[in-house]
Amino acid sequence: MKDLSAISSFSAVRSLIGSMPGPDEQALAKWQEREPQLTKPAGSLGRLEEISRFLSAWQGRHPPRLDKVRARVFAGSHGVMALGVSAFPAEVNFQMVANFQAGGAAINQLCKTFGIELAVETLELDRPTADFTKGPAMSEEECLTALRCGMAVAEPGVDLLVIGEMGIGNTTSAAAICHGLFGGVAADWTGRGTGVDDEHLKIKIDVVERGVAANRSDDPLTVLRSVGGRELAAMTGAILAARHRRIPVLLDGYVCTAAAAVLHAADPRALDHCLVGHTSVEPGHRRLLEKIGQRALLDMDMRLGEASGAALAVGLARAAVACHTGMATFAEAGVSDKH
Amino acid sequence: MKDLSAISSFSAVRSLIGSMPGPDEQALAKWQEREPQLTKPAGSLGRLEEISRFLSAWQGRHPPRLDKVRARVFAGSHGVMALGVSAFPAEVNFQMVANFQAGGAAINQLCKTFGIELAVETLELDRPTADFTKGPAMSEEECLTALRCGMAVAEPGVDLLVIGEMGIGNTTSAAAICHGLFGGVAADWTGRGTGVDDEHLKIKIDVVERGVAANRSDDPLTVLRSVGGRELAAMTGAILAARHRRIPVLLDGYVCTAAAAVLHAADPRALDHCLVGHTSVEPGHRRLLEKIGQRALLDMDMRLGEASGAALAVGLARAAVACHTGMATFAEAGVSDKH
Repeated sequence: MKDLSAISSFSAVRSLIGSMPGPDEQALAKWQEREPQLTKPAGSLGRLEEISRFLSAWQGRHPPRLDKVRARVFAGSHGVMALGVSAFPAEVNFQMVANFQAGGAAINQLCKTFGIELAVETLELDRPTADFTKGPAMSEEECLTALRCGMAVAEPGVDLLVIGEMGIGNTTSAAAICHGLFGGVAADWTGRGTGVDDEHLKIKIDVVERGVAANRSDDPLTVLRSVGGRELAAMTGAILAARHRRIPVLLDGYVCTAAAAVLHAADPRALDHCLVGHTSVEPGHRRLLEKIGQRALLDMDMRLGEASGAALAVGLARAAVACHTGMATFAEAGVSDKH
Repeated sequence: MKDLSAISSFSAVRSLIGSMPGPDEQALAKWQEREPQLTKPAGSLGRLEEISRFLSAWQGRHPPRLDKVRARVFAGSHGVMALGVSAFPAEVNFQMVANFQAGGAAINQLCKTFGIELAVETLELDRPTADFTKGPAMSEEECLTALRCGMAVAEPGVDLLVIGEMGIGNTTSAAAICHGLFGGVAADWTGRGTGVDDEHLKIKIDVVERGVAANRSDDPLTVLRSVGGRELAAMTGAILAARHRRIPVLLDGYVCTAAAAVLHAADPRALDHCLVGHTSVEPGHRRLLEKIGQRALLDMDMRLGEASGAALAVGLARAAVACHTGMATFAEAGVSDKH
């Protein structure tokens, strides 16, 4: 197994992206053999069937298991905060991390509800990234440090990895990444985040536009380091490492999916081991999901981050595994199949 | 508290429909006081907030609780089966009831996953309703017996009632009810159910058209008894009784929502204590949800019945209650609110 803690250059990251394993065909074949025998009309469990198939394929195991579901919330601090892009002050980063650790946030309740082990990974909260309207947000070394922090959470033995983030100002980074990767105009990708008013939304769009203009690049990793943030780079790293460790991933909302999109821009198959937990209200998310060809599992009008939408989807994954593994077959139950 | 077991005429049912209690304003006020204090941007939990608000309002209690979640699957037998409207034979009714009782069906796994107490209520499986293309499916007395069976499951102490059905041929009944209540043409409301082919879909549409033509009525309860089935009438009874017992209800897919729509046609406020668990693939369901002004919680491409979509939504309800009741407030956590 590759030692991911030793990754020390963007070219090493590129080589990881270039060597991603595919789905496990043997596990898929076993899933395909069992599923049509279960006591229900073929296909009638819809996306629950898709989820158990996905878990088999990317865990490389049949039946799939969800004994160890891990959630990681990555927290980072953003230089563009000084420009007035958020409705909340930067000190909330520290306060919310304390709230996660004390068990008081939404994600704590969601993880408790669905049997998910949670931790928060802070990324130099007291050292914001640079203001990306004036140059790259991170040096290559800073970006690599964040990528490695994310890679470390994809430990062997994890059955499903749920990732998300907290970082006041980070929907601005997400918008800039999407604008940098997929073009269009800045306003296409920029929303109200935690709830900025019209005036601050204009500022935010302007910051995204100037940030991308100041950091043009065709290289996805360079886009990440130029207009991303540490918690975004960590999520990119976690997703990439999970692929190499055979850990399926549940993505959260806009910021998380933007971090994932960096990999998709490098290789369109790079997110095949990921499902998106929910569609965020943040308008760029729906557009982004179209670009990367994903349909989210839930659409609950949420826009919180913290991995909340992904954690909520763990309930669906548990249901999917229970149905595929626990239901009786037509033969076992003595039920007549279709005419 | 009204003795619902004594309901012995359609006019008594109409008087129950005419005397439904509204939401509990005091519980709503307490919900409204707490929710904005929780450590998240206002509104950022989207429909999870809607669910905890709904449960407070209709349990008449704050905080809402989900200690006793009950699922009931009503099973009935349909006279129109003889006309070739289903891909499965009628004996599957008995086999699937045995499968529910043995724990082998999808709904057993879903109830286990989300802590739901499950039972199946059979309604004279060995005595199919009459062929409704030739006259009413049920006499008023038969329909009342089924309504009372449903009413009995809404026992005081239940915190949330999850209802669904199993009955080979019953998407034909659901289509006929919708066509009878909402007009349009039979094809608008008729889908493939468990998976009929083109030839049998044509037969099914013809049966729905002839059934409604043979039983025209402007009275919703008469539509129910004329083209419905015993398990549909039982669901109608369960929903109505739950309202009087202050039990919120999660509806399942097309057949369940069609049974609920009978009440909506009698009074548009009659389903305010219900949420719809999921949107079924059965095309009439989406159309029906528009007619009754409901947006389902999930859209998972499912079409199984058995209360499966409603049971899956219990996971969302548990998450909603956990967040509303368990999260820290801004003051408790020392988190700064919006500028």
